[in-house]
Amino acid sequence: MNKLILVTNDDSLHAKGIRELVATAIQFGDVLVVAPNKPQSGMGHAITITKPLRLEPYSGFQEIEAYSCSGTPVDCVKLGIFEVLKRKPDLLLSGINHGENSSTNVLYSGTMSAAIEGAMEGIPSIGFSLADFDSDADFSATKEVAKAIIPKVLKNGLPKNTSLNVNVPKVTFKDLKGIKVCAQAHAYWEDKFDSRLDQFGRPYYWLTGKFSDRDQRVDTDLYHLKRGYATIVPTHFDLTNYTVLNDLKYLDNEGEF
Amino acid sequence: MNKLILVTNDDSLHAKGIRELVATAIQFGDVLVVAPNKPQSGMGHAITITKPLRLEPYSGFQEIEAYSCSGTPVDCVKLGIFEVLKRKPDLLLSGINHGENSSTNVLYSGTMSAAIEGAMEGIPSIGFSLADFDSDADFSATKEVAKAIIPKVLKNGLPKNTSLNVNVPKVTFKDLKGIKVCAQAHAYWEDKFDSRLDQFGRPYYWLTGKFSDRDQRVDTDLYHLKRGYATIVPTHFDLTNYTVLNDLKYLDNEGEF
Repeated sequence: MNKLILVTNDDSLHAKGIRELVATAIQFGDVLVVAPNKPQSGMGHAITITKPLRLEPYSGFQEIEAYSCSGTPVDCVKLGIFEVLKRKPDLLLSGINHGENSSTNVLYSGTMSAAIEGAMEGIPSIGFSLADFDSDADFSATKEVAKAIIPKVLKNGLPKNTSLNVNVPKVTFKDLKGIKVCAQAHAYWEDKFDSRLDQFGRPYYWLTGKFSDRDQRVDTDLYHLKRGYATIVPTHFDLTNYTVLNDLKYLDNEGEF
Repeated sequence: MNKLILVTNDDSLHAKGIRELVATAIQFGDVLVVAPNKPQSGMGHAITITKPLRLEPYSGFQEIEAYSCSGTPVDCVKLGIFEVLKRKPDLLLSGINHGENSSTNVLYSGTMSAAIEGAMEGIPSIGFSLADFDSDADFSATKEVAKAIIPKVLKNGLPKNTSLNVNVPKVTFKDLKGIKVCAQAHAYWEDKFDSRLDQFGRPYYWLTGKFSDRDQRVDTDLYHLKRGYATIVPTHFDLTNYTVLNDLKYLDNEGEF
């Protein structure tokens, strides 16, 4: 029996990246697409609970069954599994994102939140991102990386609770050095707001800023991406910082307030 | 000099929980409030990047400086630090959330995403949540827990990259057993969608489901909450699953595609 692959993204059904991912995925199984009807970048692990969700058939992928969803990437995963399929797929693929989701960007990323949601449901899940925001970006290197990883994950599965965060540098396939499994860098955004006045003289703000990599380790995604490698970070959803659990036990209290 | 405390939440400026948190926070320093102008539950770590943000003075906290923000909890933290204060506060408090944010709920939680964002900015940050969705919930036990924790965190700081996820069971203060520092339980939602037809006969969906705790460990937040303890999970933003890094090194590729 063919493998069943659920594909989603955060740049919407209309992005080039999801078309490229679907073109790759159909080489490995039967594909179902459930993706947002509008861009959902920066939505993180958001779910829609204060308004109803819409889900409509979408014919833009020709013979491939596809649905357009009014919600977030995580909503798409939940609707795909529990409403459309009524069972778990063999693999969940998210992307290919127009833009990098390395380092702490994983927290803001709708692409990776969809993959993390897949792992929460026990499905081997992979998010793919290319370090190029161009709407007509060249996804050929990313597709080769996907073709190298997907069959291995279909064959071996993934460790419990763990999805893969795959990032690919903006290089041609012939300049891609290879693939490195590594850790998420501890970089962050030095935020700034671009403050403007609207036509009524009232202020509004655009979030901007620059990315700052202060992580000195040599086995992080940012380190390898700069050297021309694609990176794979095994990503889980246990946010407990176990290394400090004992240090913080001094906050324990047996009812003596 | 007084300590400077930034307060936000995800239930909006109009929720009882943030009023109770502000009432507690002013006992420990000068308070600035930047919070959403409408409920933002389930927004996770979402940020607003496809439309401009609005930020307006809000007079609902009497003499306390407060701003109403059109964006998500994480937007509130960023605007509070980089636009309103133009410096880092000594402490960030988020909540008190109307509803529990234990276990994997931390990923969907706007309350905790605000605290995690604070930790990303290097600010000691605590999210408080009460296991009661009632808009008029009794926050007295949570306030006592906050009063026990806040001065210790102001004095000792928190480990690097780490915020605290504090959850309080729905009990009176006299029935609260104490406080336990522990790990995030590996529970999850068994999702279901409530499918209905609108006035035009078109389907729409409400996300529903039941929470399923399959974690057998005895030092998790869900375990202690059930026993009547408040819980503190040290929560970081490195999602790398280090325990499986070596097992996955078989996916490394030195350019032999």
